[in-house]
Parts: sequence; C-alpha cells; structure tokens
Amino acid sequence: MKKELYQTPWNFLGLPEDASTPAAQGWLLPIPYESTTSYGAGTRDGPAAILAASRQVELYDQEFDCEPAMEYGIHTVLPMNLVHRSPEAMIQAVEGAVAELLSGAQRPKVLGILGGEHSISAGVARGIARALNPGSLVAVHVDAQSDMREEYEDSPYSHACAAKRILEVCPIFQIGIRNLSSEEAFFLRGCKKVRTVFSEEANDPKGFYLRDLAQFVRNKQVFFTIDLDGLDPSIMPSVGTPEPGGISWERMLEIARTVCANAAQVAVFDVVELAPIPGFRPPDFLAAKLVYKLFSYALRNRKAKNNRSKNG
Amino acid sequence: MKKELYQTPWNFLGLPEDASTPAAQGWLLPIPYESTTSYGAGTRDGPAAILAASRQVELYDQEFDCEPAMEYGIHTVLPMNLVHRSPEAMIQAVEGAVAELLSGAQRPKVLGILGGEHSISAGVARGIARALNPGSLVAVHVDAQSDMREEYEDSPYSHACAAKRILEVCPIFQIGIRNLSSEEAFFLRGCKKVRTVFSEEANDPKGFYLRDLAQFVRNKQVFFTIDLDGLDPSIMPSVGTPEPGGISWERMLEIARTVCANAAQVAVFDVVELAPIPGFRPPDFLAAKLVYKLFSYALRNRKAKNNRSKNG
Amino acid sequence: MKKELYQTPWNFLGLPEDASTPAAQGWLLPIPYESTTSYGAGTRDGPAAILAASRQVELYDQEFDCEPAMEYGIHTVLPMNLVHRSPEAMIQAVEGAVAELLSGAQRPKVLGILGGEHSISAGVARGIARALNPGSLVAVHVDAQSDMREEYEDSPYSHACAAKRILEVCPIFQIGIRNLSSEEAFFLRGCKKVRTVFSEEANDPKGFYLRDLAQFVRNKQVFFTIDLDGLDPSIMPSVGTPEPGGISWERMLEIARTVCANAAQVAVFDVVELAPIPGFRPPDFLAAKLVYKLFSYALRNRKAKNNRSKNG
Amino acid sequence: MKKELYQTPWNFLGLPEDASTPAAQGWLLPIPYESTTSYGAGTRDGPAAILAASRQVELYDQEFDCEPAMEYGIHTVLPMNLVHRSPEAMIQAVEGAVAELLSGAQRPKVLGILGGEHSISAGVARGIARALNPGSLVAVHVDAQSDMREEYEDSPYSHACAAKRILEVCPIFQIGIRNLSSEEAFFLRGCKKVRTVFSEEANDPKGFYLRDLAQFVRNKQVFFTIDLDGLDPSIMPSVGTPEPGGISWERMLEIARTVCANAAQVAVFDVVELAPIPGFRPPDFLAAKLVYKLFSYALRNRKAKNNRSKNG
Amino acid sequence: MKKELYQTPWNFLGLPEDASTPAAQGWLLPIPYESTTSYGAGTRDGPAAILAASRQVELYDQEFDCEPAMEYGIHTVLPMNLVHRSPEAMIQAVEGAVAELLSGAQRPKVLGILGGEHSISAGVARGIARALNPGSLVAVHVDAQSDMREEYEDSPYSHACAAKRILEVCPIFQIGIRNLSSEEAFFLRGCKKVRTVFSEEANDPKGFYLRDLAQFVRNKQVFFTIDLDGLDPSIMPSVGTPEPGGISWERMLEIARTVCANAAQVAVFDVVELAPIPGFRPPDFLAAKLVYKLFSYALRNRKAKNNRSKNG
Amino acid sequence: MKKELYQTPWNFLGLPEDASTPAAQGWLLPIPYESTTSYGAGTRDGPAAILAASRQVELYDQEFDCEPAMEYGIHTVLPMNLVHRSPEAMIQAVEGAVAELLSGAQRPKVLGILGGEHSISAGVARGIARALNPGSLVAVHVDAQSDMREEYEDSPYSHACAAKRILEVCPIFQIGIRNLSSEEAFFLRGCKKVRTVFSEEANDPKGFYLRDLAQFVRNKQVFFTIDLDGLDPSIMPSVGTPEPGGISWERMLEIARTVCANAAQVAVFDVVELAPIPGFRPPDFLAAKLVYKLFSYALRNRKAKNNRSKNG
Repeated sequence: MKKELYQTPWNFLGLPEDASTPAAQGWLLPIPYESTTSYGAGTRDGPAAILAASRQVELYDQEFDCEPAMEYGIHTVLPMNLVHRSPEAMIQAVEGAVAELLSGAQRPKVLGILGGEHSISAGVARGIARALNPGSLVAVHVDAQSDMREEYEDSPYSHACAAKRILEVCPIFQIGIRNLSSEEAFFLRGCKKVRTVFSEEANDPKGFYLRDLAQFVRNKQVFFTIDLDGLDPSIMPSVGTPEPGGISWERMLEIARTVCANAAQVAVFDVVELAPIPGFRPPDFLAAKLVYKLFSYALRNRKAKNNRSKNG
Repeated sequence: MKKELYQTPWNFLGLPEDASTPAAQGWLLPIPYESTTSYGAGTRDGPAAILAASRQVELYDQEFDCEPAMEYGIHTVLPMNLVHRSPEAMIQAVEGAVAELLSGAQRPKVLGILGGEHSISAGVARGIARALNPGSLVAVHVDAQSDMREEYEDSPYSHACAAKRILEVCPIFQIGIRNLSSEEAFFLRGCKKVRTVFSEEANDPKGFYLRDLAQFVRNKQVFFTIDLDGLDPSIMPSVGTPEPGGISWERMLEIARTVCANAAQVAVFDVVELAPIPGFRPPDFLAAKLVYKLFSYALRNRKAKNNRSKNG
Repeated sequence: MKKELYQTPWNFLGLPEDASTPAAQGWLLPIPYESTTSYGAGTRDGPAAILAASRQVELYDQEFDCEPAMEYGIHTVLPMNLVHRSPEAMIQAVEGAVAELLSGAQRPKVLGILGGEHSISAGVARGIARALNPGSLVAVHVDAQSDMREEYEDSPYSHACAAKRILEVCPIFQIGIRNLSSEEAFFLRGCKKVRTVFSEEANDPKGFYLRDLAQFVRNKQVFFTIDLDGLDPSIMPSVGTPEPGGISWERMLEIARTVCANAAQVAVFDVVELAPIPGFRPPDFLAAKLVYKLFSYALRNRKAKNNRSKNG
Repeated sequence: MKKELYQTPWNFLGLPEDASTPAAQGWLLPIPYESTTSYGAGTRDGPAAILAASRQVELYDQEFDCEPAMEYGIHTVLPMNLVHRSPEAMIQAVEGAVAELLSGAQRPKVLGILGGEHSISAGVARGIARALNPGSLVAVHVDAQSDMREEYEDSPYSHACAAKRILEVCPIFQIGIRNLSSEEAFFLRGCKKVRTVFSEEANDPKGFYLRDLAQFVRNKQVFFTIDLDGLDPSIMPSVGTPEPGGISWERMLEIARTVCANAAQVAVFDVVELAPIPGFRPPDFLAAKLVYKLFSYALRNRKAKNNRSKNG
Repeated sequence: MKKELYQTPWNFLGLPEDASTPAAQGWLLPIPYESTTSYGAGTRDGPAAILAASRQVELYDQEFDCEPAMEYGIHTVLPMNLVHRSPEAMIQAVEGAVAELLSGAQRPKVLGILGGEHSISAGVARGIARALNPGSLVAVHVDAQSDMREEYEDSPYSHACAAKRILEVCPIFQIGIRNLSSEEAFFLRGCKKVRTVFSEEANDPKGFYLRDLAQFVRNKQVFFTIDLDGLDPSIMPSVGTPEPGGISWERMLEIARTVCANAAQVAVFDVVELAPIPGFRPPDFLAAKLVYKLFSYALRNRKAKNNRSKNG
Repeated sequence: MKKELYQTPWNFLGLPEDASTPAAQGWLLPIPYESTTSYGAGTRDGPAAILAASRQVELYDQEFDCEPAMEYGIHTVLPMNLVHRSPEAMIQAVEGAVAELLSGAQRPKVLGILGGEHSISAGVARGIARALNPGSLVAVHVDAQSDMREEYEDSPYSHACAAKRILEVCPIFQIGIRNLSSEEAFFLRGCKKVRTVFSEEANDPKGFYLRDLAQFVRNKQVFFTIDLDGLDPSIMPSVGTPEPGGISWERMLEIARTVCANAAQVAVFDVVELAPIPGFRPPDFLAAKLVYKLFSYALRNRKAKNNRSKNG
C-alpha cells in the first residue's frame, strides 16, 4: 500500500505513526463513561468528538514556535471498556488502569485522560496515588460545581461527588466554582484541605489568586482535573450544567501555564464532561486545543526543568 | 383564580383534574432511568417527551367513538427518583415501587410505565410477581433485540439482559426480534419458556402468529413490555439501535388488541427506550398515542369482561 | 452581465426568466402566515423551504416524458405581507389577494398557494367564490384532522377550523382523516355536505373511494387543499401534529390524478402546514415535488380537455 | 406512596410541595403566547424550557449564603390559556389575569411572568395599573429593540410595539437598545417619558447610568420587563433577532440589583422572548437562573425594607 | 496493557485484531471525498458515520446462523487522502488506489468502498478494469438518479455523471431510477448497454426484473455500486436529493442476494452519498448493516461456488 | 397586483425595488462555492443564509442616524454559477465575473461578495487587478488562519492558500491570525509584503496596530477580505475551524471604520466561510449586519471624501 495515498491514522492530532507509538512521552486515554449524569446526556460521546476535532488542530504552536507534539509524541490509547455493574466498579477499573499505565515498564511522562463524566476522576486520583508517591500529590480542579457532596442520588461515586472523593486522596485547589449546595458551602468553610476560588475572583482581571496557585503546586506532583463546565458557556455550551459567569479561554491558559511552570510534575491531567451538541463543533475543537496545550505546557516545562537540573 | 383562564394541569393527555386523580383506573409512572445504555443516549428524556407530546393527542378515539380517558381516567404519578448506587439497586427500587403501587389501598386497575432504558422492566416484572399471583403471569415482549444475555458489560442488570431477567419471573412471548447474538440464538433454541417471533414472521401480512399469541395470553395476567425499537425506524427513529425491518403502526395495534382482548388482565405495561431526537417530534407523538391506545384496550376490554361475568 | 455566469433566478423550480413571467399559466403565491398554531411552530418558514428545495427538483418528468413546466410556465409571486391585527383580518387579506389575482387582466390558469398554516385556506375559498362561479365549486381536502371545529382557542379562524370555514362556501370531500374531536365526529355524522374518507379507507389498497371522488369533482370547479399532515409521518415528519397511519406518496399521486382528470377545472390548490425541521430536508423536497405534480396534472389535463372541446 | 421514591413535583426549581403552594411569596405565571413574531419562531416553547432547566438550578445561592427560595417560596401557576381571536383579545386576557392575581385574597408579593412574545407585556402593564396604584408605577425595560412602534404588520399589539403600549401606562427606562427604526429614533428624541440607554452606554464598564436608574425607580412601584434579546447573543442566542453588542451576564445582574435595591416594590417582572433552540440548552438555563435571581433580589430586599420600616 | 480493559480497535464492526488484519478476505476502503455536490453537503462525513454506527451492529447474523465476519474477516483500510487539484485528479487517484489494492500480493477477495460522493465510482470502475479482466465486467447500479449526464456544472467528473463514466468501462443494470433529465431519458432510450429499471417497476411486489438481473450478472465479474438515495427517504433521509418513491430495505436485500448468488464474482462494491444528519442516526446504522450484508453475500456465496467447483 | 399586499423582493436587506436596481451604488454578488473544504461543510449555504437573515436587519442605523441603504442603494446580483471542472477553473470564472462587473458601463461603486469558501478571494483579487489600477491595490485580511500555504491537499487553489494567491497580486495586512503551520510561520518571517497582526495583538484593548493599518491603506485602493473565522467562536461558531481567542464585534467594527476612513477607495470586499448551523441563526444575522456596515462605511466615507475634494 502506497503510504501517501492514505490519511494519517486515527489518533489525537492525526499524528504520523512514529510520533504516536507507545514510546511517546504523552499518552492519552479515552474513558467514554457516563452513568450517573443527572441533566443532559452525551458525555459518553465526548472523547470521540475531541479526537475527531483534534485532527483539525494545527500541529504548529506559535507560543513555542515549533510543532511540539512532533517533539514529545502523543500515544492515543484505545478507549477503556465500560463496567456497568456499579459506578464503584467502574471507578475501581479506572484506578486499576491508571495505576497500571503509570507503573508499566513503558510508560508515559504525562498521562492525559478524556472523559466521560467527572466521576472517573476519583478513580484517576486513586490510581495516581497507588502508582506514584502520594505524599507530594495535590490536585488542581477547574469546575463550575464544587462537587463536594458526600453522596448524590444514592451513590458516593456520582459525578457530583468527584472532588470529595479526590479529597480523600490529596488536597485540592478549586477554581471557577459558582454552583454549590448549602451542604457543600458549609463543608468548604470548615475544610482546610481545600482552597476554593469562586468565579468572581477567578475572573478578576488582576488574577491575584494565581500566586497562591503557584505556591500550592510548587515542588508537588499535580493531578490537574478540568471539568469543562468551569469555562464560560459562551465558549463551552456543550456541558450538562452550563452556568453563566465562567472562565475565559485566555484565563484558562494562564491557569494551565501557572500550574505547569511551578509544579514538580504534572503526571496526569483529565478533561471531562464534554457532551457534544450534534452539529455544533466549536466546543469540541476548543477542548482538543486545550488538551494539546496541556501536553505542551506539561512536557515542555518538564524538559526545561530537567535541563536545569542537569546543568545545575 | 378563574379556571378557564389557565391550561389543564401537566399530566398525560392534559386531562382535567377530576379525570386524573388517584381514583382513576389507569395510573402512569415515569421512570427516567438511564445508566447502562451502550449506544446513543437520551432515554432519560423519554418520559418527559411522551408527556409533552400527549397533550396534543386528541381525547376522542374513533375506534371507540368516545373519549375513553374521560371514562376510566388516568393518574400521572410523579417520576421515580433515580438511584445510582448500582443498576441492581435501581432495579430493586423499581420492584419496590411497582409492588407498592399495585398493592396499595388505592391502586390502579392498569399501571402503565414510561422508560427510561429497558433494564427497568426486570424490576417491573419482579414487582408484579410480588404483588399479584405470579403463577398465572406471562410476559409479551415487543423488541428488535432478544435481550436474552445473561450479563452485558459486566452487569446482569443491563438493558441488554432485560428479557433474561423477566424470564426468571415468567414465560415470554417475543415479537419483532431481528438482532441477537449467537449466545442468544443458542439459548433461544433450547429454551421452552420463550416463543420468539422473528421480524419476517412478525411482518408477514397474514399474521398467523397472532393466534398463538391469543392462546399464550388466554386467562393469564399479562405484563406487556414494549421496547420501541421493535417498531420500524421509518416511524420510530428515536431509539439507540434502530434496526431496519421492524413492525408497522397498524401491526403494533393488532398485537395490542390481540393481547388485551384475550388476556384475563393486562395489569401492567411499559413503553421504554424512547430517546427523543431534539427537534424531531413524530416519534414522541406516536409513543404517546400508543400509550393511550394501550390504556384503552386494557381498560375497555376489562370492562367488557366484567360485564360479561356479571351477566353470565 | 454575461448570463451563463449566473444561476437562474430565485423562483419555484429555478425556472429561466421567460418561463416564469406573469404570462405563465401557473402562478404560485407564498403565504408564510402562522399565528394560531397550537403545537410546534415553524409553518411561516414553509414556503421558503419549499422554494429552496424546488430548485433541486428535476424539470423533466418521466410521467409526461417532457419538462412540463417549460411548456406551461410558473410565475412565482412575491410572498403576501402578513396582517397581525387578528386572524380574521389576515383571512380577509388572503380573500382579497386571491380574488384579485383570479380576476386580473393577466391571470393564472391555475393558482397554487404555499402555506403557512391551514387557516389561510378559508380566505382562499372565499376568494375563489368571489372571483369565479361559486355554484359549481367543490373542495377536495387531504388532512389528518377534520378541521371541522366551529371555533378553537377562541377564534373561528384557527387552523383547526379551516374546513368548517370552507364548508360555508362549498361542499367538501375529505381524505385521510384520523384525528377528530367528538364534537367533530357528531357534526360529520349529521352533515350531508361533507364526505369523509377516514385513514383506514384512504389507505386500503383497493381504493374504492377514488370512484366516489371522481364523481364528486366531475364537471366542477375544484379547490384542492392539502394539509401535509395527511401524509404518513414516515415521509412527512415536518408537521405540527404527525399522526401515524397516513397516506403514502403513491396514493397521494393517485388522488391528485383522479381530481385533475375528472374536474372541469382545478382553479386553485394550496399545500399548507409544512414546518421545516432544521437540517432535515426530505419533507421539503417531497412538498416541492408534490406542488410541481399538481401544476402538471391540473394544466396538462386542462389542455387535453380544451383540445377535446375544440375538436369535438 | 412512599414520598422518597418519587421526584419533586413539576414546578419552577423543582421545589418541594410546601414551598410551592399558593401561600408562597413569589408566584410564577407562564404565558406561552406567540402570534405576531416576524422572524424565528418558538417563543411558545419558552416557558416550558425555562421550567425544565430550572430543575437543575441549585437552590443554594452563594450571594445570599442560603437557599432563598426555601424561605420565600415560589408558586408555579398553570400556564394561561391562549386566545387567538386577535392579539388585542389576548392582551386583554393577560390584563385580566394579572389584575385578578394581584388583587386576590391570596396573592403574591412578587409576580413573575414567563413569555412568550413581548407583546404580552402590554397586558401585564395594564393589569398592574388596574390592580395597584398606577400613579407611582414605572417600567424598567431591557431589550435590543426599542419596541416603540405605534403599529407593526397592521397590529398595535405586535411584539414590536410592546414598549409603546407600556408607555401609555407609565414612564419607561430602557437599557441595551441597539436596533430601532427611524420612526422610533425620531419619537424617542421628542419623548420625555422615556430614558433610553443605548448599548454602547449600557456596556460601558463604568456604568454611570446605573445612578440614573436608581433615581428613576426610587420609591416607585416597578414593572421590570426583560426581553432576553437585550443580552449578548454569545450568551443568549435563543432569540428571534440576535443583535450583536448586547449586555453581559454580570451587567444584567448589576441592573437587577440596582432596581430591586432602590424601588419601593418590584411587584411584577416578566422575562420574555426565549425561543429555545432544540438541543442547545445553555440559554434556557441562564434564563431560569435569571428568574430565580429576580425573585431573590425583589423579595429579599423587600424584607429588608419592611424590617427597616418596622424598626424605624 | 491488559487487553480486556480496552475496547476493540476502531474498525468496521469493531472486529478484534485477528479478524481485521490485511489477511482478511474483505477489505473496506473509506473515501471521504466531496467536491461537486450541488445540494446538501456532508458526504465527506459519510464513511466516519458508517464506521461509528457499524460498531453497534451485532456480529451474529440470523440469515447465516453464525458470525460471518469472524469467518472471512474484514480489514478496514485507512481513509484515502483527498486530492483537490481537480475532480479528474481525484478520480485518477481513486483509480490508482483501487487498481493497486486489487493487484497487490496481499489483496482482498472482496473490496468494499465507502463514499463520499458518487463521482468516485468512475475511478473505482476504471481501477477494476485495470486490475481485473475488463471483458467480463458489468456494473449493477442502485440509485434514484440515472447519473447519465455527459457533463454537469462544467465537469465530466461530477457526481451527476457517475454512471456515464462507468458506462465507458462496462454495461450497466440500473435499479430504482426516478429522477432524470430529458437529455438522459433520450440517451437511455437509444443505448443498448444500459438496462434501466425505473422505480415503479423496482418496487413492484412481484419483482419480475430480478430474473433479468440474475441473467445480466451470470458468470460475470460485478461492480456493485449503491447510491443510498436509491432507497426510500422514509428509511434513508440522509442524502442530498431524497426522492420519494424509493426502494425498501427488504427489496434492497433481495437485489443484493440476486446479484451475489448469480455473479461469478462481486469483486468490488461501493456504498456512497450518505450525508449524515447530525443527531439522526438510523440511516447511518442502516448503511452499516447494508455493507455487512454485502460482504456476507459476496463472500459466503463465493465460498459455496468454490466448494462446488472443487467437488464438481 | 396591489403592491402593499406583498412583501418586498428577495434581496439583501429586503430593499424596495427602486433601491435595489443596478443603478444602486453597492452591488452584492453571492458565490456559493465550496469544494476544497477540509473540515465541516456547508459554506455553499452561506450566501443564502446571509440574505435570509438580512431581511430582519433594521434599515435605520443609529451610527449614521438614517437608513443608509436607502441613500446609496444595494443591488443583489444573482448567485454565480458553479464550475466544478477544477478549483482553478472556478477561480478563473470568479476573476472573469469580478473584472466584468467592475468594468461594465453600469457598475457598482462598491462591490460586496458573499462566499462560499475563502479560495474564491484569489479570483476576486485577480479580477480587481484586471479591472482597476493594480499599482495602488492593497488587501486587508481578517482571518484565524494565515492561509499562506503554497499548496494544500494537492491544490494551489485550496481555501488554505487564499492569502498566498492574493499576495501574488498585492501586499496584505492580516489581522486576527492564530492558527498557522510552521511552513507559514517561516514564510511570514521572511516576507516584507505581509504585515501579520496575531490575535493577542489584535485583541489588545489599546489597539495600537490600528494606526499601522490606517497608514497601510492610506490613499490606496483596498480589497477587504473577511474570513468570518477571524471573529471569536462565541459570536461566530458557524465556521469550519472555530479557533478560540478571536476578534470581538466591537473590534471588528473599529477595523472596518479604520480601513474605510483612510483608504482612497474600498472597491471590493468579501465576507466568506459562513457555514450555517441548522437552527442556529445568530451568526447569520451577525454576518448580514457586518455586510451592511461595510457598505455603509465604504460608501458614506466615499461621499464625504468626494464632497471634500469638490469643496477643497
């Protein structure tokens, strides 16, 4: 078969074979799980929509003046199989898969994950803790909801409890919150392991909290979990609960740059809750571009640090 | 408040208050549950779409030359709360709710149920068996899929196992099947408790199997479970797995008439798996009209029988 | 401007200038009126959708083995202005426009009208009666609803009263009816000026009623009014009340052929109630093709008759 | 029936029974009227879409650190019946319903209304004037259009004349206007009863006009009428005439806070012209959240004032 | 990586690795080309939609009482790269790719192709003729349009000329035609190399023409080209020109069975012109099921024949 | 025919006959060409969507305090015929049409063009150069992509090469670029004929580059080419590649005012790449309003200048 006659394989960004093998520094795992969603359905179609849109994202990134993905490579893992015995069983499967990927002989430097609903993030956090040093782990969490419920619709593994489950593993820095229950508000006031930046503060042009964020992640291993409804509905309508007053694209990038520039390592990130609207593609494209940016910030800064330590 | 200024309440068919109280002979319970769906989402929006469309259905029915619902009344129950601890827990909740409704002091003569995904039918069957005499219970099942898997995606309570779970409660007569696995085909050949009418036979204009169906339900209590994907996609595209070659509207009515005219009682029916397509309403309307017809066949024939026995 | 560089003008079928002037035998008047619709909106977009779709209809018609529209010509009139003072005022405006068009010095042999909601047909009927000999006028009416209510939602000019208003002008032959109120059923039983062919009879393959229809229109002037929801929802989902059990495409053409072959003249027809579904075009295309067929049957048979009388 | 098995009733915010009886301080009246719309249809579906979306709005509101609706209660009235005799007849029906609701023995402290098209606001204003002291009444009007036409498409009760009809009842303060006719521009220059804040001024970050607004409503009874197309299309695309350059979510809240904090009473507000886009829910959710905020500002500030006067 | 954690690879039917290697007997080549479409866009998204839907098709086929694809295997080739220098250049690229695939050392027994627009079929026919014995080649062509224009919109490689280009390679048997130009009608009357079965004949329940079809393909190599608009719009609305009066699902299967049972070999088939409607999946699913059936008929009958000749 | 009964003709803004004849100063040419699009289809429907939406744009413009189009007039030319022989042939046809329109006896002062895909702009630029003095010609180009590829998907006339082809005719000032390939980045660094304002600079509130822009166009003939994906996806989602971080509505108007106030003449502008999303109209409306603003800036400033020179 003459190669030039055919399109590049079906992977994130449509990378050529040699930039998308398991030898790549970035791995991307789709988890099209959706089960406990209460309003609006479709997050199970999120990963496929992001992969499809990513093929239109330009490899060249002006911010780095190069094609970063061609340098570090991204390997698109096959989507996880679903377990529908119970949400808990699925979360355990996610934990197992993440732990196994992070501790394999051949393993990613940065693991990106595409949801599916936010509940998977609990499994992701547990998987990281199992595979890496849990003592230095912290989570940065962009979201409209606080997700600090103990249980929701009779399940502790609902998408509405995602952050509460993560908190059992490590401290959390939340950004963009603008929808919470009184139970959650009460809990947050009393909890020292969570710093919550509500949306007014998150959108303030001065962005003072970015310094706190830099401090929070410094020398830590970071799990970066992004529920896309943290963004403003004008740029991200494809979510189940589109709360007005969210984060802009420019601010989202500032947050990501701050995290990746100051953390010891962003070992894992996930981007969840995209529920594609049929025929309305801009949000899919934005999500794909965000994932690419996250890989680049996490892997390019890492390199810089490695170089520094080598030279230092 | 002057009554004539306001619309009728939000219930099935938009019935006036006095025809929709719990004293009505028909009750309708929405169960907007969706969790194990594998392809295409949205059955959680099915009950609301059917209720909305039903308000446009004309009360007068030419077949009976009257407004049947004004005679027997239909009470629209509030939708069931969802349980997301596990599919099994939800099925148990359904079982509990159905059993309780059927054995209450004030209870329906016919209970209709709106899904949601087909897995709820397992709970419905169990609830009927708990509340009524299980010895004389049989199930009539319209569907494109056989749903005879023992387990699917790691859960025995998946929508793909609905009929297998019902079979644990009572014999089944299946109509319209045209999509099954080899495991299911093997199982069906060996199982005497199931009679399967595949789609070619189901669509045959002569409809010889209708006599078998009449025989199957004679003097029995019937649970009538209709997965809407049993109908042809040309009239019912709003389903997760739209298999070509399905049942027509006219034939669906013939089946329903046969069941209700011959059974001792159709105590419960459910209509499941409507996944409304935004902006495309004909399937919602058809489902609403089908539910109305089912109530009328079940309750009008019942009356006829009661009269006969009184006079006999 | 070089002609061949540009597309044909924006008119029905995209006819060239010389086949679409007011000298054409067929005129087409769009009336994008919508005001009293009770369920589902969008008939105001119907005429534009039909015109857009018509540009894809092939001019050549195999049934006539020629391009009929190039022989008789069709002039697309500008859409009528809307009047929103009251439904009655709009109906009067329609009456005036139709009467004026039919009695102008330059006037169509056949006037086609595109709705808009069905209420406009009352104005059309009155306009015909004012301009032509009302004594020999009859109406043929394809619909799912009987539209024989005296008043609906407080207006006698609602779309649900269309046929009742027409009946004040001339006798009616209804086909495809399958949705009516008890008030209407009672009225129809007692009324000698209406012949109603319900949907079971309308769909019977033998079509015995077509002989009655031929008899009904013989030597009469016919107003042919087609509510598209008379067709089956599998081919015509783009209507407000998509009743299952409707007329097929083949039967619709048989009806039209019967009317046009036997009437003295089909002076006016209307095709109403198309509510285009965004992104779903087959119904728009079908409606466009139906309008073209109606012009051809009405004008080609007319010619045949004229020739006969000349030669006779 | 065990209560915990079923969902809360179908009302605004999905409030429990005891917070949604007629004893509640807030009442919400849906008026799904649409008749004179000129471009884009679907406002008749607006109220249902807002109610559906409201069930996902969190009861807890950070701005008040409580669940305000549980304190004051909101009673969802049944939707008004439609009158299609003429727009004028419908406006009269609205006037009657509003006047009756405001002067009943059991009546709301604040009446919210969901449109439907903007023309209903004329009836609302008249109803308020009939029931309350018209001398101290003023209207605050958010919109993209000035709506100051004397007549439109032959009706003085068109949606395009809404503000002109209100002006016959009381003075108006308009905000966000960016689409008007030359007739309207001429009229506005000469009219002292209207203050118009065009969109450039409305969006100016400094917001000087908010002081004028506070002055305008001070010690007045206010009718607050919000045509959602006053908001920017990026957050509110679901309107008939989506004019670029509109008001942001944050500014909308500032306007509402200013009105409610300074008025003697905001007896009635309406939120009109939502034309839901199938499958695109963020605008429905935003509208629901805005309605909740309006109730909270109007009823919480009222309480504060009452307390003050009691104590003063 | 534990295999059972992940879904099967992204290929037609979601086959496991070992049934989808190049050693498989069936190969499937997506050609998402769209350039000359005149009405309605989106055939470039057709192949991806068919692949996505195919993953929901059950492997087990009752007609064969086995999982045919697990026996013969299907290898999904990467989509062809697009050439936009001119339609002619793209057709040449298709010709080259098809010829190369059919004459490779490792090559398919049956090559299926997914369009894209119908114009690619000209390249397919040329590629077959180059690779195989052109003397015994015939084409069977299901379509609504005759596609016998010499040139359209200034290009001889338009989708509207597909059959004319194929005719330069081999004789054609057309089925389902119901839309043609007078130029085409004239041409067809005079051309002996084409047999055209118009839609009335194609839909006749007796199906006499199937005998002619069997005769036409007997002992021939067949190129089977299916423009999905040959099917009826009630089951296949997702096409650019949805002509009423098309072929049913049952008849389509009869045609396919007739071709595959009588031909010496169906070396290549294509299924073209699917333009997926966002959010409306039944047509995608039907197309996927049709492709699977075509592989099974072509490869299972082939086996039967081989066995016969071996034994004979 | 009584004029007041009918709507205004189908032209841009729905202008009355006498303001839309070829004697008008502004002409608008739709070119619904789409052939080389790689992602997302539908630009062929762009011109029709803009025309349809324009009929809702208010003629009165507050910025000028008059109805500008009634002063200068706009003539809507029929859409160009498509040529599908090759992209090059279409570009040549565009060149011919533009040159012919600009040099006719009766010709526009300003020619606006509606795409269609961006590749047509190459033909437009060549047509201007052929008809007018090419020495003083410059292009101003709003876009998300640089479009400076030499060739794309094997064609130098792809939409992705539009600016490169224009550059062969005249210098370019690009604004809003935020998506380019490394090939393009390299080219831009070395090319003196292009000034590129990337999106960060383009969105800077201070807008220093507007002075450079004024300088660039001073005393020049300007071809103003606007790819709508230059705007932010929150206000313009209906494009093939919706890049986050684009230009706001207010800034777009500032750019247009700067160009038209400083150029000697804006002889031609085009607005391209609108791919309407079915049912989602705000972007169509925005595009229509932008086209109207462009005509007004270009023709009103022209008049001012003419007056000045007359008086000077």
